[in-house]
Amino acid sequence: MLAPLDAATNLESVRADRAARQQELMAEYREFVALPNVSGDRAAVRRNAEFLVAAMQRRGIAAELLEGETTATNPAVFGEVKVPGATTTVIYYAHYDGQPVNPKQWAEGLEPFRPVFLTAPVERGGKVVAWQPGQPIEPAWRISGRAAADDKAGVFAIINAYDALVRTGQPPTVNVKFFFEGEEEIGSVHLAELLRKHRAKLAGDLWIICDGPRHVSGRKVVQFGVRGDVNLDLIAYGPKRPLHSGNYGNFAPNPAQRLVTLLASLKDDNGRVLVKGFYDDYVQFSETERLAVREASFADGALLQELGLAQPEVPGRALLEGFELPTLNINGIQSANVGRLAANIIPSSARVTLDLRMVLGNDWRRQVQRVLDHIRAQGWHVIDHEPTDEERLAHTKLLRVEVGSGYNAQRTLMNLPLAQKVVAAVQATSAEPVVRLPTGGGSLPLVVIEQELGAKVITVPVANYDNNQHAENENMRVDYLWEGMATFAALMRLD
Amino acid sequence: MLAPLDAATNLESVRADRAARQQELMAEYREFVALPNVSGDRAAVRRNAEFLVAAMQRRGIAAELLEGETTATNPAVFGEVKVPGATTTVIYYAHYDGQPVNPKQWAEGLEPFRPVFLTAPVERGGKVVAWQPGQPIEPAWRISGRAAADDKAGVFAIINAYDALVRTGQPPTVNVKFFFEGEEEIGSVHLAELLRKHRAKLAGDLWIICDGPRHVSGRKVVQFGVRGDVNLDLIAYGPKRPLHSGNYGNFAPNPAQRLVTLLASLKDDNGRVLVKGFYDDYVQFSETERLAVREASFADGALLQELGLAQPEVPGRALLEGFELPTLNINGIQSANVGRLAANIIPSSARVTLDLRMVLGNDWRRQVQRVLDHIRAQGWHVIDHEPTDEERLAHTKLLRVEVGSGYNAQRTLMNLPLAQKVVAAVQATSAEPVVRLPTGGGSLPLVVIEQELGAKVITVPVANYDNNQHAENENMRVDYLWEGMATFAALMRLD
Repeated sequence: MLAPLDAATNLESVRADRAARQQELMAEYREFVALPNVSGDRAAVRRNAEFLVAAMQRRGIAAELLEGETTATNPAVFGEVKVPGATTTVIYYAHYDGQPVNPKQWAEGLEPFRPVFLTAPVERGGKVVAWQPGQPIEPAWRISGRAAADDKAGVFAIINAYDALVRTGQPPTVNVKFFFEGEEEIGSVHLAELLRKHRAKLAGDLWIICDGPRHVSGRKVVQFGVRGDVNLDLIAYGPKRPLHSGNYGNFAPNPAQRLVTLLASLKDDNGRVLVKGFYDDYVQFSETERLAVREASFADGALLQELGLAQPEVPGRALLEGFELPTLNINGIQSANVGRLAANIIPSSARVTLDLRMVLGNDWRRQVQRVLDHIRAQGWHVIDHEPTDEERLAHTKLLRVEVGSGYNAQRTLMNLPLAQKVVAAVQATSAEPVVRLPTGGGSLPLVVIEQELGAKVITVPVANYDNNQHAENENMRVDYLWEGMATFAALMRLD
Repeated sequence: MLAPLDAATNLESVRADRAARQQELMAEYREFVALPNVSGDRAAVRRNAEFLVAAMQRRGIAAELLEGETTATNPAVFGEVKVPGATTTVIYYAHYDGQPVNPKQWAEGLEPFRPVFLTAPVERGGKVVAWQPGQPIEPAWRISGRAAADDKAGVFAIINAYDALVRTGQPPTVNVKFFFEGEEEIGSVHLAELLRKHRAKLAGDLWIICDGPRHVSGRKVVQFGVRGDVNLDLIAYGPKRPLHSGNYGNFAPNPAQRLVTLLASLKDDNGRVLVKGFYDDYVQFSETERLAVREASFADGALLQELGLAQPEVPGRALLEGFELPTLNINGIQSANVGRLAANIIPSSARVTLDLRMVLGNDWRRQVQRVLDHIRAQGWHVIDHEPTDEERLAHTKLLRVEVGSGYNAQRTLMNLPLAQKVVAAVQATSAEPVVRLPTGGGSLPLVVIEQELGAKVITVPVANYDNNQHAENENMRVDYLWEGMATFAALMRLD
């Protein structure tokens, strides 16, 4: 499997070129990470986009900003390199915006937008290194900062992979397009709009998404899909005001009791969702996908131990095997107070937030409808607003349901020729077997790329699993950052 | 029923004496309410006790403080009047301590310890009256202040009832003892200790408790019991840290899902508790009690309407009928966050606070044991501490249970001769039928009086139902305060 590409791409020259230029590369990366990029701060985000356009132009890439239909959209950064004779066009995707930050939560010596080197993650005793430009950079160090891993590392890997190929005289074998999004961390709210507006520029066969972490074992990962997602909030109503639980106990119905009874009916003790039709239309893993999942499932025992769990929800089933199925999860439930703050009352309402994940074959609106049908079958009257007095007096079981905006799953079949080329390319860069995941457990609206552009989508992450993504003390392993360049260099020579 | 006592006690002279002295009585009452009395503020509470001793001594009552075993007990105020020829001894109980206050929550112009007159409760548009001492006092006005109703009104009614009898030449026909508690609002934590320590002084046949409100219709109430009470906190454990609901969905068990399933198993849709033996040992209402409850159950329709409820928890059953039974209630439930604060996570724990109320025949420890047996029968491993790693790994369903300190119900049978005398005495003071309640729905540790002293206990409240007990803007109707004197005057001439 390794031979053809190994022959075709000289990865050692890519790595050597990087090693020779690491001071310069790191200086630019630190400058990039130092730019505040919280998605909601439009002006700051745009400065990142302009920084990127300049960095790409320095590398000889025709780069530009893709604006949305209104000024309420953070621009995407686009670039294109046409390769004579190439028949495949690949769009390399990463996002340059970041999650919100609370500087007070960061460890002493760390600030979200002042990158420094750490000897290890602070949670494992890592210390800030008193490093000066020009001094050696250890591979196992971490570079700290918001988006250092998620996902400026992806942007770094992609543009420098291209640069390294050019510098080592190995031009890409596919037409290369760059697409760096600026709103991923706020749900890619304008991604469909951007794709539609710039459809012609974005034509291509395959999108390779660089986001997320490598396997917990350190192995590289190729992931072929993500789940879809939608949230539901259910609010059950009791008496209009909280009541003394003695003076009104046995009389006023308790909305928390009614809600828990409804929630208990949704799932059995072995984690199976009892909603009618919930598992009717998912696409089962193929034999290839099942085999890949089995090969990747070697860390569950340690994970259970780390999480303090006696058994998985479905006894005997591996973590990754479960990604084949849609989920229904209680994100949180609240009614009145507990513990020392509790009062002896009948609460006036009880609320739960549910998270539904969809897999290939599911439609999020259909899954929501099934849950609503189930709720009604339990005798509930469902409304979408605060109940009126008339509604309260007319219905014993009154439930307000708020349905969030959802999207479906995306999954590229692993046995497509293009998919196999991607695996082979990544495998060529690694002595360890690549972990192939038919789908991740999480959700991204990647389905819009398929829907709007008809392209295939595959994800190849570069970050370390312990990068503290979305949280304080985010960090990126230096050697994983470097190695991302090699991975994407190989991915630009698919053909 | 009314004749003998009507003949024996001249209530009109009691009322006329009060009317003649109302400026003086109100001046003293305002002084009393102005004394801060939050139970936890020992020094302030003691000033109330000393004020009371002086007030009682002015009325010719031999009064003293009853101290606890340690200085950590707020004293009770005791007084005694021996009546030549009397064969029955009655202890008249009220409490002089009050609930905590948050002055910011009180309406404009109102302060917890600066009593003023209101034209009505502020919630119904009542205004502060620009009243000066000596000006007329309207019967429908409210006097505002913490403990104005709960329960300094009880203290006022009792000592001034005695005074009025003496002043009108109608001495009590029973031996009168006064017992004013200073820790009722913190759960009567030292009541048993005080009763034991001062057992000889407190010997008697009957305690009449003056606390709580009259019926919502305004009718006077004689209540023969209270329920017992105990709280249980249940904490279910999931993964040691909250997990991404996509990456770990279908794998890590959700503690909220497991807890709701347990809670759903506790109660059916019609409010019946499904715990084995839960209803095995309660003492059913007698025919007399049942009849009394039926007579008092004329306000349920309006109550359902006011509370916005289509039906009671047990369809067709009256509020007061339910007081025959023990209860199990969810006071509150919490796991992670809901609504806008919710994240797509599997929470690491879920917690519920339950309230169990006991009725006559129940033992609180036995009821708790039944609930624990039920929990274990659902496959849970019950512990009383934060789980160790070993416990987490050994048990799929791991539940921490915290049991509060509880006490049993107290109920005096309505057909006892002494009980009938109490009803007749109160009835003699009212043109409207007295509401007789075999038990209230709420809880007080009155059972310790039975247990420690072997005395019977009956409650006769004097406050208005809309007194905002325990909350901001507490208020006492002036005419109910005056009428409390007449009620207790009659109750001091039982024989």
